[in-house]
Amino acid sequence: MDTTEFSGHTSREFNEELEALRSKVLEMGGLVERQIEGAVESVVKGDSDLGLDIADNDEKVNTLEVEIDSECARILALRAPTAVDLRLILAVIKIITDLERMGDEAKRVGIIGSHLASIERPANSYREVKNLGAQVKLMVRGALDSFARGDEQAAARVKKLDRGIDEEFDAVSRQSVTFMLEDPRTISRVLDVMWVVRALERIGDHAKNVCEHVVYMSAGQIVAHGDIDAVAASVSRPR
Amino acid sequence: MDTTEFSGHTSREFNEELEALRSKVLEMGGLVERQIEGAVESVVKGDSDLGLDIADNDEKVNTLEVEIDSECARILALRAPTAVDLRLILAVIKIITDLERMGDEAKRVGIIGSHLASIERPANSYREVKNLGAQVKLMVRGALDSFARGDEQAAARVKKLDRGIDEEFDAVSRQSVTFMLEDPRTISRVLDVMWVVRALERIGDHAKNVCEHVVYMSAGQIVAHGDIDAVAASVSRPR
Repeated sequence: MDTTEFSGHTSREFNEELEALRSKVLEMGGLVERQIEGAVESVVKGDSDLGLDIADNDEKVNTLEVEIDSECARILALRAPTAVDLRLILAVIKIITDLERMGDEAKRVGIIGSHLASIERPANSYREVKNLGAQVKLMVRGALDSFARGDEQAAARVKKLDRGIDEEFDAVSRQSVTFMLEDPRTISRVLDVMWVVRALERIGDHAKNVCEHVVYMSAGQIVAHGDIDAVAASVSRPR
Repeated sequence: MDTTEFSGHTSREFNEELEALRSKVLEMGGLVERQIEGAVESVVKGDSDLGLDIADNDEKVNTLEVEIDSECARILALRAPTAVDLRLILAVIKIITDLERMGDEAKRVGIIGSHLASIERPANSYREVKNLGAQVKLMVRGALDSFARGDEQAAARVKKLDRGIDEEFDAVSRQSVTFMLEDPRTISRVLDVMWVVRALERIGDHAKNVCEHVVYMSAGQIVAHGDIDAVAASVSRPR
């Protein structure tokens, strides 16, 4: 971001508030990353306790969202920010909504993981969940990094990872139907796996949203549902 | 809402802007309601063209979201609203995100509806989709009405409808497994129906979120993930 835009601030305190806000979002993001990782692990390793822990921990994600949200409202009311500062606040309000919903999906996966741990494991040891989980984690990490650095070019690149996740999800869905047809006794378990991969695919969607918010924050353009490539090109500048 | 709080405005123009914003949200809400209705109809009546129309129309929902979002940013930058006005703007920013995602789910249902129209219909003519669709529409309508009237008591009541929708969804899921076991040739179609009811259940979740935003807007308390009943009781006052 163009740091000269910050020169208009009359208050060092205000800059510190914005920095604290940014840190808090990254703290929430780190927690959500660990939740996703643990949820995937509970399925892959058949760890019932871990799955339940993840579900319980979701409350912490929600608490952080409420705290950050209140802080944004407070800053808007007291500081009446404009330009780049206003865009930061608006982006944060949206990013934490997406992070909170990633947390919800991780909770769903944890609950299913806890259940799957009690039944017979498939021959492939949930390799599809492990693979998709790894892709999704990478994307969430990339989205949060692009926020931390205010790097809209990185955000535009990370956003594209969602396509690979959607393709993987489609492949797993098709494969699941084959499994069910081959052995109808597995239907219930295969459905659970489908809900898990669906949740992971949704987490990818939310990570994509985060990338769009970062582009808006850094570039001042709304790109949700738009052509992010064009925007990324138009905002290209030396840094 | 306590209208005396509005007396602080120095500008009639500002009030008109807020009124226009509110209208625009209701316009978007009306469009989303029609999208949900059409998507459900495309499945229940086996109308492939309708399903595709719904999918195409989602672009209009997205356009409205971007317009309203820009208007909120403009008002925040130029008017620096506080108190009840700030809460309205923040609630609107969140409500349109939920409306946009309801639109995404309706699009998914429309696409599946278009596909289902080309294959053999089940004996029950997708009655489960019709029933759940009716419940979800009722809830979305209620959530939008509570926004239009700024009525946090109504919002708290409407929010409770989500429980019935979740229960219905669980019942349909269980029934679906039975159908698949009884006749594995139907697996693919039953899965499509499960994705449809899942999308409807998600629309219910988004309607619940809208209710929470209305309570925040009207009562000035963040109730997402909290006890909405307590808040509704605490803000009870004659109107």
